[in-house]
Amino acid sequence: MKLLEQAICKEGKILPGNILKVDGFLNHRMDVELLSKLGEEFYRLYGNCGVNKILTIEASGIGIACLTAQFFHCPVLFAKKSKSNNVGDKLWASKVHSYTHNTDHDVVVSKNYLGRGDRVLIIDDFLANGSALEALIDLCNKAGAEIVGAGIAIEKAYQEGGKKIRSMGIRVESLARIVSMDPKEGVKFC
Amino acid sequence: MKLLEQAICKEGKILPGNILKVDGFLNHRMDVELLSKLGEEFYRLYGNCGVNKILTIEASGIGIACLTAQFFHCPVLFAKKSKSNNVGDKLWASKVHSYTHNTDHDVVVSKNYLGRGDRVLIIDDFLANGSALEALIDLCNKAGAEIVGAGIAIEKAYQEGGKKIRSMGIRVESLARIVSMDPKEGVKFC
Repeated sequence: MKLLEQAICKEGKILPGNILKVDGFLNHRMDVELLSKLGEEFYRLYGNCGVNKILTIEASGIGIACLTAQFFHCPVLFAKKSKSNNVGDKLWASKVHSYTHNTDHDVVVSKNYLGRGDRVLIIDDFLANGSALEALIDLCNKAGAEIVGAGIAIEKAYQEGGKKIRSMGIRVESLARIVSMDPKEGVKFC
Repeated sequence: MKLLEQAICKEGKILPGNILKVDGFLNHRMDVELLSKLGEEFYRLYGNCGVNKILTIEASGIGIACLTAQFFHCPVLFAKKSKSNNVGDKLWASKVHSYTHNTDHDVVVSKNYLGRGDRVLIIDDFLANGSALEALIDLCNKAGAEIVGAGIAIEKAYQEGGKKIRSMGIRVESLARIVSMDPKEGVKFC
């Protein structure tokens, strides 16, 4: 999506350690009108798929998910990062591995709000190694919810996440797919 | 606001320990159309105040803030809960005391995105003891940003937060003000 690629080129900063900083419009300061346009694009891609729930993960997925849900006229459910190991029997839980911090943590959703009959579009801001997305998929599978697909703002296509998730047979639509990035060369898209 | 009061009465659950569970529409599963109506109401209240930035705190404030920002045509900035004690010199930081866990943690925003010239509407889902709101006010003061006011979905008016913040001279508009709640008697509004 040209608009998003332009925003990345104009405002994104490439930092050492494979970090693309887009906190000026995506995940700290949020350009709500741009994010709503991303939502409109997700609706163009998934609008005829019978989506009745959008699932995301706190915190930075929530804004895009809410703005997207306005086009689908459906609720948003966000998975919470759980601090306790004892998640109880009222929650679906899955583990996310953080490559940055080399730790695992649980993400949870209430069993009241995800289950059979749900046709879920998963929304997130980034797809890199795919661990957050895998956990959201796992939550849907445990709940018996059907996954329509995933809508990602920015995919680091040179990392393995997208390939791994697509090889599971899940449709993944990323609005900007980065094929390489480098502080000198800048960002290149697929 | 009648619509919000009705949602609280219909879907809210009062749990022991002064807990109002509204995770069915507000802070886990999010009823995006209702939240957008809250945003419209905040715009009715603050629409002529020259707001050019909405400030909230992760995670459950983000949805309401984004939907509200659509009416104001301004960006959202969300304060992040910081895990490290060393927040660096590029961030404005403030402490939030959690009464639930009896711990303190930092919340931070980038100095790039909050400063002089900003006219800030602070948005959050709950106001009870006021510690999160105080921290957001403190961030604005440190940054030299002007606070137009606060827009709160649900205020527990029997706790001291609202009184404390209003006595600082800050305008606080809460769309549902709970004067008492009890598992037997239900919720009563001001």
